[in-house]
Amino acid sequence: MRSPDELRALVEARLAALPFAAELGRLEEALRYSLLGGGKRIRPVLCLATGEALGRPPEETLDAGCALELVHTFSLVHDDLPALDDDDLRRGQPSAHVRFGEDVAILAGDALLAEAFRLVLAYPTPEVGRVLASATLGMIGGQYLDVTTDGELDGPGLAELHALKTGRLLQASVLCATAVAGVDERGWAELGREIGLLFQIVDDILDATGTAEELGKTPGKDEAAGKVTYVSLYGLDRAREFADEARGRVLDCLAELDADTSVLAQLVDTVRERRA
Amino acid sequence: MRSPDELRALVEARLAALPFAAELGRLEEALRYSLLGGGKRIRPVLCLATGEALGRPPEETLDAGCALELVHTFSLVHDDLPALDDDDLRRGQPSAHVRFGEDVAILAGDALLAEAFRLVLAYPTPEVGRVLASATLGMIGGQYLDVTTDGELDGPGLAELHALKTGRLLQASVLCATAVAGVDERGWAELGREIGLLFQIVDDILDATGTAEELGKTPGKDEAAGKVTYVSLYGLDRAREFADEARGRVLDCLAELDADTSVLAQLVDTVRERRA
Repeated sequence: MRSPDELRALVEARLAALPFAAELGRLEEALRYSLLGGGKRIRPVLCLATGEALGRPPEETLDAGCALELVHTFSLVHDDLPALDDDDLRRGQPSAHVRFGEDVAILAGDALLAEAFRLVLAYPTPEVGRVLASATLGMIGGQYLDVTTDGELDGPGLAELHALKTGRLLQASVLCATAVAGVDERGWAELGREIGLLFQIVDDILDATGTAEELGKTPGKDEAAGKVTYVSLYGLDRAREFADEARGRVLDCLAELDADTSVLAQLVDTVRERRA
Repeated sequence: MRSPDELRALVEARLAALPFAAELGRLEEALRYSLLGGGKRIRPVLCLATGEALGRPPEETLDAGCALELVHTFSLVHDDLPALDDDDLRRGQPSAHVRFGEDVAILAGDALLAEAFRLVLAYPTPEVGRVLASATLGMIGGQYLDVTTDGELDGPGLAELHALKTGRLLQASVLCATAVAGVDERGWAELGREIGLLFQIVDDILDATGTAEELGKTPGKDEAAGKVTYVSLYGLDRAREFADEARGRVLDCLAELDADTSVLAQLVDTVRERRA
């Protein structure tokens, strides 16, 4: 089985070589700029690692993984727009709308989403696309909660927002692989949910403690925007305890699955220990 | 076989009853506002009429037709944004961003696109979704040409822009039905292309001659924005000749198809004679 770093290298190579629709013309430049500007590739790597745990070679899950990264990138491009989070910096570079203008950024985000569906629709089964569509809608629902509930969330509200905005696509990273493999979601859906929660708590901690250099984006944005996070709601120490508890639940899920989950366990440690 | 008006009634009823993802929460209101605010439903009606010409009951093509209308509505919501066409009026009502704010309008457009794919992914064959994804990407490529080539287009450039921006989704209205029916695209793809061209020429004529009341949107927008149209490039009389020539080619296509195309011929007359 391949290590997370080996899987990441496969993902990077495929993303760089991804053929886009010829009709996009020079808009393709804006898609590639946002897609290839770095990023941890946690979603595709999680998809490939899940596939390997199920005995499927990475080649089979690679395009599903890339589709997840396309949807993630679409959400970042639109989230960064002035009308939404208004963020000028992304992965250490000017955001798409700063680089190309708002009109092109909106269209580039739209095209990234459509390309993601084109990619999953190439699978013989529509099940992969169904997982992606459902998760994308959940994510958009989370973005809507995010822009309409600034500063008004309690603990359960925050958990719901995160479960949608970040959680659904991370969970889909696991479930796209089970869809490709044609296996029952049982156990895997819960694993995906817990990984999503762990990821988001760590994200909130990093926003409060990371530097712009480490993060490649403006730190402290959540606090400055008056956004409710695990850190603002519970304090840094308690948030770190939450993260460790979430990690424990993820490892419990892994232990219960009838699959070789050793690489997935490595990946979970990367998520908990990441600095950016 | 049902008349275009009967097919339109089926489409309206299904659009009004369409279940959206529960996770969208109150964002659903913005989707319904844009989707149910009128509109000719030419794409879904064309899809259903093609299905009937192929012997398929409207129930089979109805969700593909609704998906086409969702993609069309997504494109209108994003096109109307201040960063793109900056249009405050749509179908006689305030545009989505005027009614709900830019942030919600961007997310509503995204959600309409994702819902469209969720709908076509419910078909047992991924072929319907493949047609829709390809057409959506072509349409976005056309929108990109539109925002980046203001006033610089010659005849062939204008034809390419229209073939992408308007033509691809109209063509897909025919090809989604052939995909549902599982028949060869031959003949039908050309029919779809010619209908798209006819539709766009008539659209350019209406923008130059219609009233706001008739159109439900600001007339003369193209001219005011310095956009190249069939009317600006060739004059009104020649544009009308082009429309009649295009109609003739559509009828030639229909005559060559081995199917009962009588309702499709009625529909073509509606497109040519429409006042809005």
